[in-house]
Amino acid sequence: MKHSKVVDVLKSDKLLQPVTVKGWVRSFRNDRFIALNDGSTIHNIQCVLEDNAIDNKVQEKITVGAAVAITGTLVESQGKGQKVEIQITELKVVGESNPEELKLTILSPKRHSLEKLREQAHLRVRTNTFGAIMRVRSKLSFVIHEYFQKNNFYYVHTPVITKSDAEGAGEAFKVTNFDLTNVPKDETGAVNFKEDFFGAETNLTVSGQLEAETYAMGLGSVYTFGPTFRAENSNTSRHLAEFWMVEPEVAFCDLDGNMDLAEDFIKYVIQYALDNCADDLEFLENRLVQEDKQKPQAERSEMLLRDKLKFVLENNFKRVSYTEAIEILKNSKPNKKKKFKYIIEEWGADLQSEHERFLVEKHFKSPVILFDYPAKIKAFYMRLNEDGNTVRAMDILFPGIGEIVGGSQREERLEVLKEKMAALDIPEEELWWYLDTRRFGTCTHSGFGLGFERLVLFVTGMSNIRDVIPYPRTPLNAEF
Amino acid sequence: MKHSKVVDVLKSDKLLQPVTVKGWVRSFRNDRFIALNDGSTIHNIQCVLEDNAIDNKVQEKITVGAAVAITGTLVESQGKGQKVEIQITELKVVGESNPEELKLTILSPKRHSLEKLREQAHLRVRTNTFGAIMRVRSKLSFVIHEYFQKNNFYYVHTPVITKSDAEGAGEAFKVTNFDLTNVPKDETGAVNFKEDFFGAETNLTVSGQLEAETYAMGLGSVYTFGPTFRAENSNTSRHLAEFWMVEPEVAFCDLDGNMDLAEDFIKYVIQYALDNCADDLEFLENRLVQEDKQKPQAERSEMLLRDKLKFVLENNFKRVSYTEAIEILKNSKPNKKKKFKYIIEEWGADLQSEHERFLVEKHFKSPVILFDYPAKIKAFYMRLNEDGNTVRAMDILFPGIGEIVGGSQREERLEVLKEKMAALDIPEEELWWYLDTRRFGTCTHSGFGLGFERLVLFVTGMSNIRDVIPYPRTPLNAEF
Repeated sequence: MKHSKVVDVLKSDKLLQPVTVKGWVRSFRNDRFIALNDGSTIHNIQCVLEDNAIDNKVQEKITVGAAVAITGTLVESQGKGQKVEIQITELKVVGESNPEELKLTILSPKRHSLEKLREQAHLRVRTNTFGAIMRVRSKLSFVIHEYFQKNNFYYVHTPVITKSDAEGAGEAFKVTNFDLTNVPKDETGAVNFKEDFFGAETNLTVSGQLEAETYAMGLGSVYTFGPTFRAENSNTSRHLAEFWMVEPEVAFCDLDGNMDLAEDFIKYVIQYALDNCADDLEFLENRLVQEDKQKPQAERSEMLLRDKLKFVLENNFKRVSYTEAIEILKNSKPNKKKKFKYIIEEWGADLQSEHERFLVEKHFKSPVILFDYPAKIKAFYMRLNEDGNTVRAMDILFPGIGEIVGGSQREERLEVLKEKMAALDIPEEELWWYLDTRRFGTCTHSGFGLGFERLVLFVTGMSNIRDVIPYPRTPLNAEF
Repeated sequence: MKHSKVVDVLKSDKLLQPVTVKGWVRSFRNDRFIALNDGSTIHNIQCVLEDNAIDNKVQEKITVGAAVAITGTLVESQGKGQKVEIQITELKVVGESNPEELKLTILSPKRHSLEKLREQAHLRVRTNTFGAIMRVRSKLSFVIHEYFQKNNFYYVHTPVITKSDAEGAGEAFKVTNFDLTNVPKDETGAVNFKEDFFGAETNLTVSGQLEAETYAMGLGSVYTFGPTFRAENSNTSRHLAEFWMVEPEVAFCDLDGNMDLAEDFIKYVIQYALDNCADDLEFLENRLVQEDKQKPQAERSEMLLRDKLKFVLENNFKRVSYTEAIEILKNSKPNKKKKFKYIIEEWGADLQSEHERFLVEKHFKSPVILFDYPAKIKAFYMRLNEDGNTVRAMDILFPGIGEIVGGSQREERLEVLKEKMAALDIPEEELWWYLDTRRFGTCTHSGFGLGFERLVLFVTGMSNIRDVIPYPRTPLNAEF
C-alpha cells in the first residue's frame, strides 16, 4: 500500500478507511500512543496501539527516533489536539534507535540549548524548532522565485568562482587546485597562477551584481539567488562565511523604482509565509514567547511574531535620506547622553548597527529605507548625485535585524564610472567587460541585494543566523 | 509615463492608445523602422519614425545596440510578421552605441561563431540565440522548484564549502584564506590547516547528497539545487568546472520509486518548457535546422527540437538492467565489428559514452534507465543487492546528451555501509554524522542528481555546455 504524508492524513476526512504512514517516533506513551512525525508538517499523527496488537519484541523497539511503517484505520480522535488518529493494524520498525546511544545525542527527549543543537546540525532538523525553520526557509526560497518570475524577471546563475574581486577588498576566499604544500612560484618568487586550474588567481564570489548587470542589459529584468562568501573573521550572530543572497537588477529603473520593487517584494514574500507556513509560524511564535520569558522585560519582543510580520505588511517603509537620518541621530537622546558607542558628530559618518536600530526600533518604529548616502562610504558603482557628494544608494533596515537590503541606482555614465574606479585604484583591465555595459547602450538601472538568512531570521523570529541555515560556515567551523 | 514590456505590448489589443517602451535597437532600416528589443521576449517591436518626427542629431544616434526610450501610438502593423507596431511620437537615445566601437564586438550586425560569442560572454545575452537560451534556462530553473514544492519536497541549501570529500577523490577545488606565497607549515612540513579560516582543510562541494540525506531523515522529501564543482581537467563539450545540480532525496522510497520520480519530474519540466517557452523554442528549433544544414546528412538531428521534446513526453523511459544492457552491447554490430573504441568483453565493464549512445540512439531509440550496476564501478553509498555483486544504482541516458541523471537507493544498513567504507579506505571519523543517519531511525531511501546544464542542453538543442550557462568555468578560463 502506498503511504501517505502526515500533512495530508491530518486534513483527511476519509474516516474508517485504511491508511499507511511512515516516519519517526517522537514519543511513545503508556505502551499505547505513538506520536509519529514524517517531516511533512510540524504536527505529529497519533497512532494508537491496541493491546496485544503486535508482538512484544516489536513493541520493545518502538523507541524515540525509530523509523516505523504503520498501517491502520483512520478514526476520529478521542484525545484533544487532533481531529483524527490511526488505529494501528500493522506496525513495522524499519530502523531502530537504541535509547542508550540516543541519550548521547540531541534527539534524547529533553531540552537542549541552541548551541548544543548546532554541534549536531545533522540531527537538529529532526526537532520541532528546526523542522519548522527549515520548512519556512524552503517556502521563502520558493516565493522569491515565484515573485520574480511572475513579474517577468529572469533568473541568472552568476558564477561562484570568479577572477574579479572589485568589491571584496581582500575578503574573498581563494579557490585553487594547487598542492598547498608546494605552491608553484615564478622567478620573482610570486605565486605562478598561470599553472593553476584556471590559469589565474580566482576567488569565491562576494556578489553576483556585476555579472547580473551585464544580463540586465540584455534581458531587461533579472535576479540572482545563490551562495556568496566572505572570509571575514566576524564571530557574530549576524555573519556567516557562506550565505545566500538574492540580487535583482533592472534596466530602465531608477532609485525610486528600486525602493518600490524592494518594498513590494519583501511584502509579497512575508504575505506568502503567513499564508503558507501558518502551523510552523504558530509554533515559532510560541517558541519565542517561551524564550522571551527567560529574558529581562526590556529585552523581550514588543510584538508577537506574526503580529510583527503583519505590521510590516500594513505599513509603508519610511523613506528617509541619509542627511535627515544624521540630523535625527545627532539630536537623539542616546547621542546627546553619549549612550551610543560611536557618537554621531557630523555628516559623513558611517552608520553603525546601534544607530540603525535606534532609527528603526525607537524613532520610526517601522522598517526604514535610508537613501542618498555619502559617496565616500559606498561602493564605486553607485550613481553619483548632482551634488557631487552623495550617491543613489539605499539600505533597508528592519527591526531586530538591521540591514536586510542594500542597493543602489548604478552609475551608468562611462566617464564618471572610470573616474571613480581610478580614484579607488580599480584597474580598468580587470573590469573591461563591466565597462562595456556603459559603452554600448548604457541606461539607468538599479538593483539590490537581500541577505536571505537575515530574511529567514526575521520571519522565524530566531536570533542567531547559524540557526537558520542547515550547515553554517563560520570561522573555525566547516563541519558536516 | 510608466513603460511597458515588449512582451506585453505585442499581445496588447489597446490600439490607438499611447505606449512607452524602453530597450535596445536591434536594427534601423530606411531611416524609418526601428526593431526594438528589451529582453522580455525574443520578438522585437517595430517602431516607425515619421519623416521629420525627430531632430537629425538624435536620428544619427539611433544605431544598433543603442538604448532608447520610445513613446508612441500602438497601431495595427501594415508589415508582416507582427500584429502591432508603434508610431513614434517621442524618442530619446539614453545610451549611445558608437558603430565604430561596436564593430569590434559580437554585437556588430553579422554572423559570429559560437566560439567567438563565448569570448564576449558579457554581450552574447543580447543576441537572439543567447537571449532565448537564457530565458529557457530561467524557466527551467523555476519549474524545478515548482515541481518539488507542489509535491511536498523541501528545498535544502547544502553547504558549498565542505570538509568532506568522500566522493571527490581529489577532484575537489581547495578553498583557503591562506596567503599562497607563504602557506603555514607545521613542524613536519605539512600544511598547518589549523591556521586556515575554518581550522581545517576545505573544498568546494562535489555533491550535496550526503547532507541532503541527513535532511531527508527529518523532513521526509527534500531537494537541493545549487552549484557544484569538479577540478577535472576535461576540455569537452559536456563538462564544466562549475555547474548546477538538482538532487532530490526521499525517505521511505526504493529504487523503483526513485525511477518513477525521475521520469515524472523530467516530463513535467519538459512539458512546462513547451508550454511556457514556445517562442524561444521555435527560434531555437529553427536555429538548429540552419546549423544542421552545415553538417553531413548522417550527423543531422533526426527530429525537430520540439518533436524531440514531445517524444520524451509521450514515451515511457525504457528500464533495462545493466546485465541486460551488457548482453545487448556484446551482441551489437559495432561491438562485433570492433567499431567501438572500447570493446565490451564481459560483465563488469564500465559503460562509455559510445555505449550509452548506442543503447539510446540506435537500439532503444528512447530515453533509457539503466539499473543494478556492478558494485565495483559505483559509489560506496549505494545499496548492495542480495546477489552481493550489484548495487541499486540507476542512470538515465538521453539521446545526444548521455547521462542526464545518476541516482541510487542508498545503503541504509549501518554494518554494510561501514564495510563498504572500510573497503574503500573512507575513514569513519570523517563521516560520523552521515553514519548517524543509519544509527538512529534508518530507513530505505533514494535520490538522484540531475546535471542542470545537460537538461538545458537537451531542451535548447545546443551542443556545447559552455553555451547554456552565463559564464562557463573550464580549464584556464574564469573570465568575467
